[in-house]
Amino acid sequence: MKDFDMSKKVLIIGATGTLGRAVARELASRAEVIEVGRTNGSRQVDITDSSSVRALFEAVGKVDAIVSVTGKVHYGLVTETTAQQFRTGLNDKLLGQIDLALVGQHFLNDGGSITLTSGIVAQQPIRMGSNMTTVNAALEGFALAAAGELARGQRINVVSPTLLEEAVPMYGPFFAGFEPVPGNRVAQAYVRSVEGIETGKVYRVW
Amino acid sequence: MKDFDMSKKVLIIGATGTLGRAVARELASRAEVIEVGRTNGSRQVDITDSSSVRALFEAVGKVDAIVSVTGKVHYGLVTETTAQQFRTGLNDKLLGQIDLALVGQHFLNDGGSITLTSGIVAQQPIRMGSNMTTVNAALEGFALAAAGELARGQRINVVSPTLLEEAVPMYGPFFAGFEPVPGNRVAQAYVRSVEGIETGKVYRVW
Repeated sequence: MKDFDMSKKVLIIGATGTLGRAVARELASRAEVIEVGRTNGSRQVDITDSSSVRALFEAVGKVDAIVSVTGKVHYGLVTETTAQQFRTGLNDKLLGQIDLALVGQHFLNDGGSITLTSGIVAQQPIRMGSNMTTVNAALEGFALAAAGELARGQRINVVSPTLLEEAVPMYGPFFAGFEPVPGNRVAQAYVRSVEGIETGKVYRVW
Repeated sequence: MKDFDMSKKVLIIGATGTLGRAVARELASRAEVIEVGRTNGSRQVDITDSSSVRALFEAVGKVDAIVSVTGKVHYGLVTETTAQQFRTGLNDKLLGQIDLALVGQHFLNDGGSITLTSGIVAQQPIRMGSNMTTVNAALEGFALAAAGELARGQRINVVSPTLLEEAVPMYGPFFAGFEPVPGNRVAQAYVRSVEGIETGKVYRVW
């Protein structure tokens, strides 16, 4: 028996990224998946542009789950960072994902779920990562608060992955001493969020 | 014996607000205080405008402590909030305070401190407060990460007050069941941040 009906529709934004591919692969075995990317995927969206987010949902229509595995942050030493640079990350990974929730809730079926992505740096800072810590902590706060107000039985959670094994070649040097985990382990946290009963929760995969 | 030298200079942004007055009163008995407001105080700043923040510090020159007790957020149900409304709070209480730190660090003496203000809603959400939870959680994240990168022995902390007794007439209805504390108790947390040795810390006064 599958708890999750294969006829359910899951929208995955950032489905073509390193983590997104693992998440999409796992969810595609359990539901109908629509893969969205910045430039790839079956549909495209610019999450920093609210009209692009709205256009995505208007094109896709009603869904049962919204999964966001996307968003850029600013990397740089706090001693060298400007407000403008800092704003870049706020507008992208933070406000971009929040806007997927703000707009997406109105296209989400009753009992549907929203799953956003933060990361271990929310609690365990790394060099040049102050924007990332800020953004990730903010996303976890947003889900906590939004969970109490979403309507029609909708839920919202956040997955916080540590460094992915698949990302070690690119990001390993920033995460000295962090133990990486495989993307398919992290993908299970998204399954829990989509198919489970919890809301306002942070699933840490560390 | 006073641990903190009366000749030290403390810049308080938001000194004319409800909490700011209590903080300014306490710190003024222990150091030279410069009171900054949006429209009141001995100097003015618009924290949402990076050039205004820079102009403030250029006018004031070097200081030993930067204390921020300011910033607006957006109030509204998550079911009715737009990205543009959400951005308002990000640009004001969040990025405004962060910019005070980003610019201010370069006008802060060796061993100086930066103290920002979050609030209990970071962990304990209230109705219409999703923007506030997000912003407060983000500020706590920022201080955690920035503490590891500030130069010249500089420190950064966050004070997280609950509802102030002085604010009950205005905000009490939003905080049903929250036990208010007097502003002079919260002010002590700012003294600990300014005169203590800790960094990357959240002082919760609940």
